[in-house]
Amino acid sequence: MSFFARPLFAFLLAAAGGSAAFAQGSAAPLPADLIVTNGYVVTMNDRREILEKGAVIIKDARILAVGPAAIAALYTAPKTIDARGALVMPGMINTHTHAAMTVFRGLGDDVPDRLRKLIFPLEKALVTRDLVYWGSLHGMIEMIEGGVTTFVDMYYFEDEVARGAKQLGLRGVLGETVVNFPAPDAPEAYGGIAYAKKFAATYHGDALITSALAPHAPYSLDADHLQQIARESEALNLPVLIHLAEMTDEVATLRKERNQTPVEYLDALGLLNRRLIAAHCIFVTDADLALLKARDVGIAHNMVANIKSAKGVAPALKMFNDGLRVGLGTDGPMSGNTLDIIGQLGYVAKVHKLDRKDRNVMPALNVVDMATRGGARALHREADLGSLEPGKLADVILLNREATHLIPFYDAYSTLVYAAGPNDVRTSIIHGRVVMEDRKILTFDVAEVRRQIRRLAEQINARVAQGLH
Amino acid sequence: MSFFARPLFAFLLAAAGGSAAFAQGSAAPLPADLIVTNGYVVTMNDRREILEKGAVIIKDARILAVGPAAIAALYTAPKTIDARGALVMPGMINTHTHAAMTVFRGLGDDVPDRLRKLIFPLEKALVTRDLVYWGSLHGMIEMIEGGVTTFVDMYYFEDEVARGAKQLGLRGVLGETVVNFPAPDAPEAYGGIAYAKKFAATYHGDALITSALAPHAPYSLDADHLQQIARESEALNLPVLIHLAEMTDEVATLRKERNQTPVEYLDALGLLNRRLIAAHCIFVTDADLALLKARDVGIAHNMVANIKSAKGVAPALKMFNDGLRVGLGTDGPMSGNTLDIIGQLGYVAKVHKLDRKDRNVMPALNVVDMATRGGARALHREADLGSLEPGKLADVILLNREATHLIPFYDAYSTLVYAAGPNDVRTSIIHGRVVMEDRKILTFDVAEVRRQIRRLAEQINARVAQGLH
Repeated sequence: MSFFARPLFAFLLAAAGGSAAFAQGSAAPLPADLIVTNGYVVTMNDRREILEKGAVIIKDARILAVGPAAIAALYTAPKTIDARGALVMPGMINTHTHAAMTVFRGLGDDVPDRLRKLIFPLEKALVTRDLVYWGSLHGMIEMIEGGVTTFVDMYYFEDEVARGAKQLGLRGVLGETVVNFPAPDAPEAYGGIAYAKKFAATYHGDALITSALAPHAPYSLDADHLQQIARESEALNLPVLIHLAEMTDEVATLRKERNQTPVEYLDALGLLNRRLIAAHCIFVTDADLALLKARDVGIAHNMVANIKSAKGVAPALKMFNDGLRVGLGTDGPMSGNTLDIIGQLGYVAKVHKLDRKDRNVMPALNVVDMATRGGARALHREADLGSLEPGKLADVILLNREATHLIPFYDAYSTLVYAAGPNDVRTSIIHGRVVMEDRKILTFDVAEVRRQIRRLAEQINARVAQGLH
Repeated sequence: MSFFARPLFAFLLAAAGGSAAFAQGSAAPLPADLIVTNGYVVTMNDRREILEKGAVIIKDARILAVGPAAIAALYTAPKTIDARGALVMPGMINTHTHAAMTVFRGLGDDVPDRLRKLIFPLEKALVTRDLVYWGSLHGMIEMIEGGVTTFVDMYYFEDEVARGAKQLGLRGVLGETVVNFPAPDAPEAYGGIAYAKKFAATYHGDALITSALAPHAPYSLDADHLQQIARESEALNLPVLIHLAEMTDEVATLRKERNQTPVEYLDALGLLNRRLIAAHCIFVTDADLALLKARDVGIAHNMVANIKSAKGVAPALKMFNDGLRVGLGTDGPMSGNTLDIIGQLGYVAKVHKLDRKDRNVMPALNVVDMATRGGARALHREADLGSLEPGKLADVILLNREATHLIPFYDAYSTLVYAAGPNDVRTSIIHGRVVMEDRKILTFDVAEVRRQIRRLAEQINARVAQGLH
């Protein structure tokens, strides 16, 4: 359990340019922007090292050094956070959501055929630029409060999601939805493609926002437009987000009409490549998994949403064990209701054990791995995200270890997966900026967001009372 | 969604003796001990009525009246709690746990054959009167913080659990464990029977504590002693707590040796009656379920623990639909890690949907039902517990509705099951006493308990490092 790796220490100090200073003990402190010290640092680095009393030094939005708390003295910074024993770890990555749908959360749970009978009509009637801005802000605040530092989103008016994310300081891969029917932000079918291109041009090169194309699903676009999206993605180097192999009728229709699996179908259309992030992948064959691996596709595993809708258990255990790029996602708040990743961890560990009838599979470490490093790999961002290591972007969260349910603390991964909750996150640093400190969001007026959500919820309630047709 | 049932209002006022006072508007206020007002009151009464702005009046440890907030003015009490819109509901009932095991929480998760290789040796080496007192206090604090107002416990030195429960003010059905080997509190096999009888005599007639006999399982006691326990239970009118139909080898051995299911075996021994509360019941046949119903047995459904150990999904959906007395339990903190019931709700709803491949089964209302009324029925205490109704014992909790993840609030049951967490509980009233207010435990020094848990955890760590044999 204990730890202190001398080679790591030496390496870290070297990386920080502090080796000499430490050896001499007299050189001037090195400049930094932010020091987090006295933390129980779970690095999630290649060796999964833990520093029981450690520090993380941040400069220019990146991690400059990670080491024992003593290294804090080698640096000077305008702000120091004394973690006072809190668990310090890389921020979690939510690889699939629809944040703006928080305004609909809790409407029509436990009813059949919700997508076509409830969700699409609700969206047609009610989704506006205003709703997307405030709804996604509310969802993003929930994510930050729950330890998410990067999220992957698919919705309409995705530029409004980007605007809110920039204001809040949350990192996002944001996909403008493309569907084969008129959408709230595009009066013509497939209007999302033009919308996405304009959005992408606006945010090109942004430090926090990566814009993306989001074809809704194989069953809600035709093959020509899926191919067009593949071409646009290549030309503009844009990620593509899609729901894949999520529905039994999606699988059945493609089998009947083309004798292909959904994965094979996307491959034939040129979409199966390293720019794709595919959500769900529940109904996939072993051959599909091999193809997803060969094509270097990112996968979002949404356990809570998948079982709430009784769809089934995606083979994420095999994906993880076979080295696929699989991260965790919440899906939207009408599907999984909450947007934090900590709430997914226990489900991922336990439902895979149940599914395989083996309590030893999917141990806690692997689940935390998927929530951090796995998410980074699904986004092909592992050089920048997913662990606390010098040179990576400074996305760091602090979790309380003082709550009753977290005491005693024998094992960090077990505590995170089987006992912690989103409320245990205290502080969040994204891109080197403190966006939440001791559970107070510093970058936006949360009370104003709640007022707006209540206003929107009243409109929604009134509209639902009238009937949706 | 909205509500106001005039017949209920009239009934409540009548029950409170306040009808005349209200009509005249001039009579002197009636005496009460505690008033909770301005709450969103989820009564869980027979008609599942909700008062959007309601009050609960408490006197002599019981609920005197439930009605719209206006009724608060009819009463006078030394203390009034303004719920300020918080959700007010009956406290949750944890029908199966081993609270003292909090000291071992997080040790050896994800490893095989834990019961015999880890848990029994740990208990043999380390369980003392001191450990049980502090460990169970810690677990009980967690339960109160998470909205539990009644718990069913099985462990050693159960009189220490009772002592702590009385000090904290938590209601408990507390079973002294009986096993076929020397136990930490009984040097001879089956010494727990004598221990339990002495414990029961001490707490006979106690308002908060119901003492019980707790034969560990069909496989860890012999038939003669199980029969003896059945006789003692009848003679002393003591509940019996047992792990039942939890293990595949339990089922296989009884099939081979006696050609019986575990349920049939207990019936043959005279244990299957209204005094029995059986935990798990995973491996039960339809005939077993019919027998459990006919014998009026209480059942504790422990979803999180059962799937974490990959044992399977107990047929709690059928139990509930067939009207069996089934409540929810956490199992001990080495099995399910947390002791609050709110954390179980989402698992119960979603894993049953997955298990039945039907998103419509186990809707949120039914899950909240099991957590409250179901628990009361499992204990044969439905006359006193499980809903907010005049005449019942005053076990009432208040939950925050202001947290980001709980906004908007369209449906109370959906919010509780799919979005709420144990941290959302703000205030807890048990037997008319405010034991926690705005998350501060009022009845015990929590910091002292944590100091003791850390002391014990250090001893445990040292012992585990030495090896357990």
